[in-house]
Amino acid sequence: MDRPRRRPIGIFDSGLGGLTVVRAVSERLAGEDIVYLGDTARVPYGSKSADTVVRYSRMSARFLLGRDVKMLLVACNTASAFALDTLRAEVPVPVLGAVEPGAQEAVAATRVGEVGVIGTLGTVRSGSYPRAIGALDPRVRVAQLACPLLVPLVEEGWLSGDGDGPEARAARAIAEKYLGELHARAPELDVIVLGCTHYPLVRPLLARIAAQMWRHEVRLVDSAQAMARAAEQALGDGGLLDASATPGRLACSVTDDARFGEVAARFLGHDLATVEKVDL
Amino acid sequence: MDRPRRRPIGIFDSGLGGLTVVRAVSERLAGEDIVYLGDTARVPYGSKSADTVVRYSRMSARFLLGRDVKMLLVACNTASAFALDTLRAEVPVPVLGAVEPGAQEAVAATRVGEVGVIGTLGTVRSGSYPRAIGALDPRVRVAQLACPLLVPLVEEGWLSGDGDGPEARAARAIAEKYLGELHARAPELDVIVLGCTHYPLVRPLLARIAAQMWRHEVRLVDSAQAMARAAEQALGDGGLLDASATPGRLACSVTDDARFGEVAARFLGHDLATVEKVDL
Repeated sequence: MDRPRRRPIGIFDSGLGGLTVVRAVSERLAGEDIVYLGDTARVPYGSKSADTVVRYSRMSARFLLGRDVKMLLVACNTASAFALDTLRAEVPVPVLGAVEPGAQEAVAATRVGEVGVIGTLGTVRSGSYPRAIGALDPRVRVAQLACPLLVPLVEEGWLSGDGDGPEARAARAIAEKYLGELHARAPELDVIVLGCTHYPLVRPLLARIAAQMWRHEVRLVDSAQAMARAAEQALGDGGLLDASATPGRLACSVTDDARFGEVAARFLGHDLATVEKVDL
Repeated sequence: MDRPRRRPIGIFDSGLGGLTVVRAVSERLAGEDIVYLGDTARVPYGSKSADTVVRYSRMSARFLLGRDVKMLLVACNTASAFALDTLRAEVPVPVLGAVEPGAQEAVAATRVGEVGVIGTLGTVRSGSYPRAIGALDPRVRVAQLACPLLVPLVEEGWLSGDGDGPEARAARAIAEKYLGELHARAPELDVIVLGCTHYPLVRPLLARIAAQMWRHEVRLVDSAQAMARAAEQALGDGGLLDASATPGRLACSVTDDARFGEVAARFLGHDLATVEKVDL
């Protein structure tokens, strides 16, 4: 507590997808230590109700506060949608969710005033993106769509959609199905928010299919990168940026370690040396 | 406890997929009352480790024993793989898993002595099907494959693979990818076990793609139907069959009720009047 700037940033997620946020934060804020918690025993949150998600999010926040974090990033869109107000009321450090930063970028980016949001069923049902966007600019129209197959598609690593193999055909057909539904609802949109930590990994595929569907420029907003920018801003405002030249360290904890290695490296962009299994 | 035959059959699953077992049991044993528990707050178990799955299964068993069940069916293949021995040692009623009945049918059905098993990552990793099949006939070769996209495919209702729409193309490509991998490993097999409660709903699609791949007859073994047959046998052996002419009642409990209605009817084959939300 002597040197608040040197305390780590805490990031939690329902699983491993939040490692895309770890990656974005450590690329932007290379000196910061990060403590990551993935609640992999109870992933996914997207299919669970608000009560359950709030309860699990409190446990994760408590764990990270026990590691003396100076800021809390809620990487999970579902947890951000359901638990952010509760955590902000209960937690003694700044709390950033996954929804507001992406909503801000979307509102700033749209020229026609129509934005699409894709995410898990839980995120879409919560209405958090339409609410956050409406609070920033009530004139912006929002079309949402839940895309439950995109998470397992990313976890299988069927990412590119290139070629004639069945995994590429599956990836293309899934992207076409979901973006086609979104196009039918919002033919004018010029921004799509990737409202789930997993989606940045299929961003090139989604961008290609979106370009075919809309035939005008569609900007994809990546909520992980938006969170990293928002964290930099908030730490700077609070005088909490760690400007030291030493590269930050990453400590990673999970509640269940099955299938950790294979998937983690894909999200993080490099292998992870050690991981600790914890009970919440 | 006075009339043990009139006590209900308890069935639990990690989620709603176990309703395919409820359906198979109530079609075969129309007089039996059934108490179903879906641990929908913590679904899916397939990506969780053994310790976690055993812990959750114990909680479900305790809940059903509190409802005075005369038999316990573990509909979840992952829970059967990890928790069956523990439950059998701890529980005072007969316990049937999802693995042994399907393994028995597969061994009885194969002529060439090669069997394929498809399921979740957890079921495949547990090795429970190869173990159960090996215990019945060590000469039978087993090829396994985890198919993580099939569960969300079924939950989206993209089931038939008919037509040119993207959901049909996605369903076909996913089935081709998985069955193609299985074919590469086991070109001679003549039986495939559908080792997950969700898979019976894509059985026609899988049968069609399998017929194209193997070019000889491939029998698909449905673990829900195999469990219903095994339950009838075990209840008969124990003098516990309810032969009353009154149709059995179904009581259904879940740990989280988000998205219940849409999906439950698909698995069960008809709407469900009431459902109770419980904490374990």
